[in-house]
Amino acid sequence: MKFSGSHILSIGQFGRDDIERVFEVADRMVPYAHRQRVTKVLDGAILGNMFFEPSTRTRVSFGCAFNLLGGDVRETTGFETSAIAKGESLYDTARVLSGYSDVIVMRHPVSGSVAEFAAASRVPVMNGGDGANEHPSQALLDLYTIRKELQHQGRSDLDGLRIAMIGDLKYGRTVHSLCKLLCLYNKVTVVLISPTELKMPEAIVEQLRQAGHTVLESDVMEGSISKVDIAYSTRIQEERFANPAEADLYRGRYRLNQSIYTRYCEPNTVIMHPLPRDSRTEANELDNDLNDNPNLAIFRQADNGVLVRMALFALTLGVADQVDKVSRDVNWYTERRF
Amino acid sequence: MKFSGSHILSIGQFGRDDIERVFEVADRMVPYAHRQRVTKVLDGAILGNMFFEPSTRTRVSFGCAFNLLGGDVRETTGFETSAIAKGESLYDTARVLSGYSDVIVMRHPVSGSVAEFAAASRVPVMNGGDGANEHPSQALLDLYTIRKELQHQGRSDLDGLRIAMIGDLKYGRTVHSLCKLLCLYNKVTVVLISPTELKMPEAIVEQLRQAGHTVLESDVMEGSISKVDIAYSTRIQEERFANPAEADLYRGRYRLNQSIYTRYCEPNTVIMHPLPRDSRTEANELDNDLNDNPNLAIFRQADNGVLVRMALFALTLGVADQVDKVSRDVNWYTERRF
Amino acid sequence: MKFSGSHILSIGQFGRDDIERVFEVADRMVPYAHRQRVTKVLDGAILGNMFFEPSTRTRVSFGCAFNLLGGDVRETTGFETSAIAKGESLYDTARVLSGYSDVIVMRHPVSGSVAEFAAASRVPVMNGGDGANEHPSQALLDLYTIRKELQHQGRSDLDGLRIAMIGDLKYGRTVHSLCKLLCLYNKVTVVLISPTELKMPEAIVEQLRQAGHTVLESDVMEGSISKVDIAYSTRIQEERFANPAEADLYRGRYRLNQSIYTRYCEPNTVIMHPLPRDSRTEANELDNDLNDNPNLAIFRQADNGVLVRMALFALTLGVADQVDKVSRDVNWYTERRF
Repeated sequence: MKFSGSHILSIGQFGRDDIERVFEVADRMVPYAHRQRVTKVLDGAILGNMFFEPSTRTRVSFGCAFNLLGGDVRETTGFETSAIAKGESLYDTARVLSGYSDVIVMRHPVSGSVAEFAAASRVPVMNGGDGANEHPSQALLDLYTIRKELQHQGRSDLDGLRIAMIGDLKYGRTVHSLCKLLCLYNKVTVVLISPTELKMPEAIVEQLRQAGHTVLESDVMEGSISKVDIAYSTRIQEERFANPAEADLYRGRYRLNQSIYTRYCEPNTVIMHPLPRDSRTEANELDNDLNDNPNLAIFRQADNGVLVRMALFALTLGVADQVDKVSRDVNWYTERRF
Repeated sequence: MKFSGSHILSIGQFGRDDIERVFEVADRMVPYAHRQRVTKVLDGAILGNMFFEPSTRTRVSFGCAFNLLGGDVRETTGFETSAIAKGESLYDTARVLSGYSDVIVMRHPVSGSVAEFAAASRVPVMNGGDGANEHPSQALLDLYTIRKELQHQGRSDLDGLRIAMIGDLKYGRTVHSLCKLLCLYNKVTVVLISPTELKMPEAIVEQLRQAGHTVLESDVMEGSISKVDIAYSTRIQEERFANPAEADLYRGRYRLNQSIYTRYCEPNTVIMHPLPRDSRTEANELDNDLNDNPNLAIFRQADNGVLVRMALFALTLGVADQVDKVSRDVNWYTERRF
Repeated sequence: MKFSGSHILSIGQFGRDDIERVFEVADRMVPYAHRQRVTKVLDGAILGNMFFEPSTRTRVSFGCAFNLLGGDVRETTGFETSAIAKGESLYDTARVLSGYSDVIVMRHPVSGSVAEFAAASRVPVMNGGDGANEHPSQALLDLYTIRKELQHQGRSDLDGLRIAMIGDLKYGRTVHSLCKLLCLYNKVTVVLISPTELKMPEAIVEQLRQAGHTVLESDVMEGSISKVDIAYSTRIQEERFANPAEADLYRGRYRLNQSIYTRYCEPNTVIMHPLPRDSRTEANELDNDLNDNPNLAIFRQADNGVLVRMALFALTLGVADQVDKVSRDVNWYTERRF
C-alpha cells in the first residue's frame, strides 16, 4: 500500500510487506521514544486528536507519539460540542476539522463512523477505534509486540508462531483483529480458549483455517497453554452483554497466575493482554503475582503502542525517511526508563 | 486602533483601516496555514484557551492558529473548576489565569463576562463568544471570506456588495455582527429574508440605512436571492426559543438546494453559512446536493477562521511584521489540502 | 535530597537546604516566565498532566511551567477513562501512563493514591494534591512567596518570621503544610486565629513548639494581626463538613478589609491566601477593597507557583544547570506583565 496521504481505517488494508514496513519504521523510533534523540520532523504539524468516546490511554499514546516527532496536538474528548446534537453531519464535521490539522485520529462509538468521516476529510484519518468494528493500531502493536518478544528470544520471524487466546473471544475486538493479521503469516497454531458461549466467531476460525493455520478450541485453560509462545489473555467485555449479570458468570473463569504459569507454561511463554486487566481480587484474569515475571509483556505492549503510532504518523505523512535527518542527541537528560 | 497589547472584545473596536490591517496580515498567513512554511514567531509563548462553554470548532481553530505561529496552548473546557462555584469572582480568575499565559481566548455563556474578565487580565484577552453578545473573530472571518471570494471573482473591494441573509435574523448573532461591519463600507445592498416573527432587529436595519445602504426585507427566499453576490444562510437558533416547539415552525422554512440555486441565483453567487448547518433531512437549510457546487464557501469560511485568528494573535502580540523573519520552508511534507 | 529522578510526594522530603535549592532555581526562572528569554532545555520531553480530580489553576500552572521549559504536555481531566471503573489498579495505570511521558503530575481525590501510583511509575511523579493529604508544590510556593516578599522589604531570611494564619485551621491543607515547613526555620512566631471548633490540630501545634517556635492561639482576628509580617487568610473548607450548614456558621467570621488593615496591621504586613477566595459579599474573607493594597500578595503568590513548578521540573529531570545554556533572548515581543 501507499502510506503517504492514506487513511488508516482497517487492518484489512495491510499486506505482509506493509506490516514489515510499519515495524521497520517503529524499530527506528526507539531512540526518540526513549528521548536519547529528539527529532523535529513534524515541527509545525498539528494532530487533531478527536476522541468522541473517551479512552485515556489510546488518546495519550497517539498524542505522545505525535509530540515525539516534533508536532503539536489539538484535542477533543467526548461529545462536548453540540454541533452533532444540532444535526451536523459527519461530512460537515470532517470538512471543518480537517482544515485545522495535518492528520486526524478519531475515536467514535459508532461502527463505520470513522470511515464515513475519513471520506470527507482533506487530511489523513486514523481509526482510533470505532465501536465494535476496528482499532487497527491496537492490532498492529499486538503483532509488533509478538515479533519483538520472539526476536528477544532469538527467533527471526512470525511464521510457525504458536499462540493461545484466552477469555471472551466472541466480543473481544483485539483478538478478532489479531487473527486476521495472523492470516498473513505461515503455519501458525492458534489455541482458542473460551467459555462455549463466548467462542471465537466461526467466520474468523474459518479464515485461519483457509490460511493453512492449525486451530484448536477448548474451554479449559490449563492444559491448553502448555505449548505456546504467546498466551494472549483478554477481559470479559461486560459492556457488550445484554444482561450484565451474565458477564459475572464468565468473569474470573480463566485466571492465569504464577503457579499455573510455572506448572503449565513453557519457560519462555510470553504473556500479553490488551489492557485494562481487571485487578479486583475475584476477577483478575492475570494475577498481580505475575508482575515480576519477566515474560509478562503487557506493559511493553503498551510502550510499543507509541512506537507503532509514531511509525504510522511518519509513514502517513510521508516523512519516515526524514526522521533521522532533522534529529539530534540529548545529552544532559535523565533517560526515559522504557 | 493600536493592536499590540489590546483586548479584542467587540467588532465595535474596528474601523475600516483596522479591518484592512487584519485582512492583510491574514493573507500573509496562508503559507503557514498550508504548512509550506513554518514560523517560530511565538516560540515560547502560551495561549490560555479558556472555554467555559464548550465549542469544539472555535476552540480548536484558535488553538490551531496559535500553534501555527509557533506557540503552545493550555486549555480549559467547561466549568471544570469549582473555583467559581466556591464564589470566586471573574476578577480573581482573570488575575490568576493571566499569570499563566501571554494571551487568553475566553468563551463564556454570560454576556459581558469576557469584558469583565479582560478588565482584570494582565495580558490581552480575545472574546471567543460571550452568550448572545459578541463573537468578533466570527464576524471578521465572515467578512474576510466575502472579500476573498469576491477577489477570486476579480472584484477588488467590498463597496457595492449585494448580500442576502436568510433564516433566523432575530437571534442569529453572526448576521447582527456582520451587518455592523458592513456599515463601514459603501453602497451595500442587504436583502433580509426571514419569517416575519424572526426579522432582523429594527435597530440594526436602521444602522444599515444610516450608513446609506439599501435594505430590502422579505419572507420569501426564492425571488429574493436572484441578484446577490452572497447568500448567507443561517440556522434557526432553537436554543433561544422559550418554546422549542416554536422553533420547529420555522426550521426548514428556507431550504436552499442545487435546483433552487440554478434556477434563481446568478452563476457566481457565493453560499455562506456560519455552521453547523442542520443536515437532518427535513431541516437542512443548505442541502447536501450543494456540496459539489464550487460556490459553496462554507468550508473555506471555516478555513479562513484560522487565518484571521492567526492575524489577530500576531497583531495583538505585536509580532505581525516578524512572522516571516523567523520562518523557513518545509520541503519533504505532504502539503495540507486547504 | 537527590532531586534528579525523584518523586515529589510530600513536603516531609525537604530539608532546609533542599528548599533553598528549589528557591534558588525558581529565582533563575523569572526571565523565562516573563518571556524575556526562551529556553529549550526540555525540548522533546513530555509531561503527563493527570488530573483525576479537576483543578484548573493547578493543572494550568504545572502545564505552563513545563511549556516554559520547552516541553510538551499531554493531559487528562477527570475520570474520563473507564479503565479504573473496569477494575484497573493504580499499579497498572502507572505502568502504562509512565511509558507516555518523562514526568507525571498527578492529582487524585484519594489520600495516598499518588504515592501508590508513584511506586509503580517508571518516571518521576509529582503530587498535585491527593485529597486531604498533601499538595507539596502549594506549600513550597507559599514559603517562596513569604521569602520573596520579605526580601522585597530588605529582609534576608525567614528566621524570626512572624506569621498569622486565619480561618479554617482544622481542615486547611495549606496551613498544615506551611507549619511543617516553618519547623525547618528558627524563632518563628505563629499566631493561629480560628473559631474554637476549627483550631489547628494539636499535633501540628506541638511540632511548632518542638521546633522552638512561639505559638499564640486566638479566636479574635483584629488584635491578633497587629504584629505580624504575614497575614495568611484561608477559606472555610465547606466541602469537609459533614453538615454544610455548619460551614455557614463560620464563613465570614474573619473578614479582613482595608479599614481593618489600616487600623490594626503594620504598614508592611503582607496579605496571602491560597485562593480561591470567596468574593460573595457576605463571605469574603479578603474584601475586594484590598485589591489596590500593594501588600496584597495573593496574585504574586499564584505567579510564583509557575516559578516553583519550573524549578521542581528542572531539578527532578536533572536539567536545572542547563536551562540557561540552551536559551536565547526574545526581542520583538510584548513582555508578559508579571
